[in-house]
Amino acid sequence: MTAATALIGVDWGSSNLRVLRIAAGGAVVERRADPRGAAGLASGDFPGVLEAVAGDWLADGAPVLVCGMAGARQGWVEVPYCPCPAGVADIAAGLVRPDPARPLAIVPGVAFNPGGVLTDVMRGEETQALGLAVDGLVVAPGTHSKWIALDAGRIVAVQTCMTGELFSALRKATMLGVGMGDPGGDTDAFRRGVGRGLEDRNLGAALFSVRVEGLAGRLGPTGAADYLSGLLIGAEIAGQDPDRLSGPLTLIGDAALSARYREALEMAGGRDVRVADVEQATAAGLWRIWEAGQ
Amino acid sequence: MTAATALIGVDWGSSNLRVLRIAAGGAVVERRADPRGAAGLASGDFPGVLEAVAGDWLADGAPVLVCGMAGARQGWVEVPYCPCPAGVADIAAGLVRPDPARPLAIVPGVAFNPGGVLTDVMRGEETQALGLAVDGLVVAPGTHSKWIALDAGRIVAVQTCMTGELFSALRKATMLGVGMGDPGGDTDAFRRGVGRGLEDRNLGAALFSVRVEGLAGRLGPTGAADYLSGLLIGAEIAGQDPDRLSGPLTLIGDAALSARYREALEMAGGRDVRVADVEQATAAGLWRIWEAGQ
Repeated sequence: MTAATALIGVDWGSSNLRVLRIAAGGAVVERRADPRGAAGLASGDFPGVLEAVAGDWLADGAPVLVCGMAGARQGWVEVPYCPCPAGVADIAAGLVRPDPARPLAIVPGVAFNPGGVLTDVMRGEETQALGLAVDGLVVAPGTHSKWIALDAGRIVAVQTCMTGELFSALRKATMLGVGMGDPGGDTDAFRRGVGRGLEDRNLGAALFSVRVEGLAGRLGPTGAADYLSGLLIGAEIAGQDPDRLSGPLTLIGDAALSARYREALEMAGGRDVRVADVEQATAAGLWRIWEAGQ
Repeated sequence: MTAATALIGVDWGSSNLRVLRIAAGGAVVERRADPRGAAGLASGDFPGVLEAVAGDWLADGAPVLVCGMAGARQGWVEVPYCPCPAGVADIAAGLVRPDPARPLAIVPGVAFNPGGVLTDVMRGEETQALGLAVDGLVVAPGTHSKWIALDAGRIVAVQTCMTGELFSALRKATMLGVGMGDPGGDTDAFRRGVGRGLEDRNLGAALFSVRVEGLAGRLGPTGAADYLSGLLIGAEIAGQDPDRLSGPLTLIGDAALSARYREALEMAGGRDVRVADVEQATAAGLWRIWEAGQ
């Protein structure tokens, strides 16, 4: 007999779905993943997909808590954003139950509205960040990197940086991508790119350096992807408040990408950079929100 | 009888070819254009394409001067870059004649090598900039915008900003482009984008504002392209030395795009922004280089 299921946790991203069997306290007992992300589903599709992926777990009648894009306007049901400052109790107060007959709730995303003007949003990363139970900066690198500032256990600011999507678009649709390999193999080129991105506040001009470095023979085709990746990550970091960078900073995301961000953050003077496990953070965040909602 | 041809001028860009009949002094007498740009040609193709487009003009035996990508590594014949500072005499000293039997020469591009390190290059815009015979900044906006600083009649610095290619890649290959129309119709959205680009030194984060402005209902699909265009142009301008922006600045390029840059430059505090005719600038530049080479 495995540990009792206290909560079924669901992280429904745009392009995939993760379901977690969570024990009391937030530990992950078992996990499943499926490629049916929220972006490809109509509102009515969500219950059936969840049943198909984890119907046996749901049959026990355990409560289910869903975070991520299931709560977006084009998701299962729209869950209004919770404004900053947002702690677990604030988020728990905004849970929406799409079907009164089922013990299932969807977590609101978080909106950053300084001075009453909406300037940023996230759905899913708020749960991960609150699961870490840390103050300072939490950074979730990826297609749309999220920079999340926490103070006294509440999310106080959010900034999205489109670094991953920019990298992908530059490779696919500009001359920089012609003949470019995959990143990951050339640490020296990555570090040179980070240096350029950190020092040059004109990204459109810094990007042309990928071509000039090639023309000058300082960068081969295998290094170009690493240089470009470093340049974009460096520019992302250079755009942050330096005071925040010197405090505690926790990375949550893909392990290889988190390692690259850690290296770049340390080059930028980050002194207290940790890498956390994103699945554990998600499960702990869902558990904390669930508890706060009881 | 039309004015005598003193020089056949050729501007061989990556994606098109322009041939000009030029009178003594640099005035354009007649013009032809062709879509056979240098990017689609092998070295041996260039003489035949030029013959096909302007063989009747060449038959007179007038000298021919070619600027642009014909001198690139993959062009007609590679013409080494002329380093900054580069005036008409410096460039004339670097002319290359691909065929001793013909009165035809190719203009070198210009390289910016501060401290002996190659940091930027151009081919074609040097001729246009020198044709204007102005000091201060010359900006050629486009796929790859060129910021050219001139002092005492010589080009002293070059910076390329990939603004146009970035705009195109963001529309084609990111979620920002989904449902986005063409720019040009919404001046207010353009000006708001410029404002955001001028103030925000984190371009990857500023780009996400295109989405948030839409989410918040502050930007419709027709305004999104203008907002994005303004944001990228604003960021390009914000990356320049403010001292240079307050001095004389001449725009050369597409008329509609030059008008957008002029508006953005004036928002950034530019006090002496002019728009020049690019064909006249090309012809005058070719004439000045030709004369200096005699």
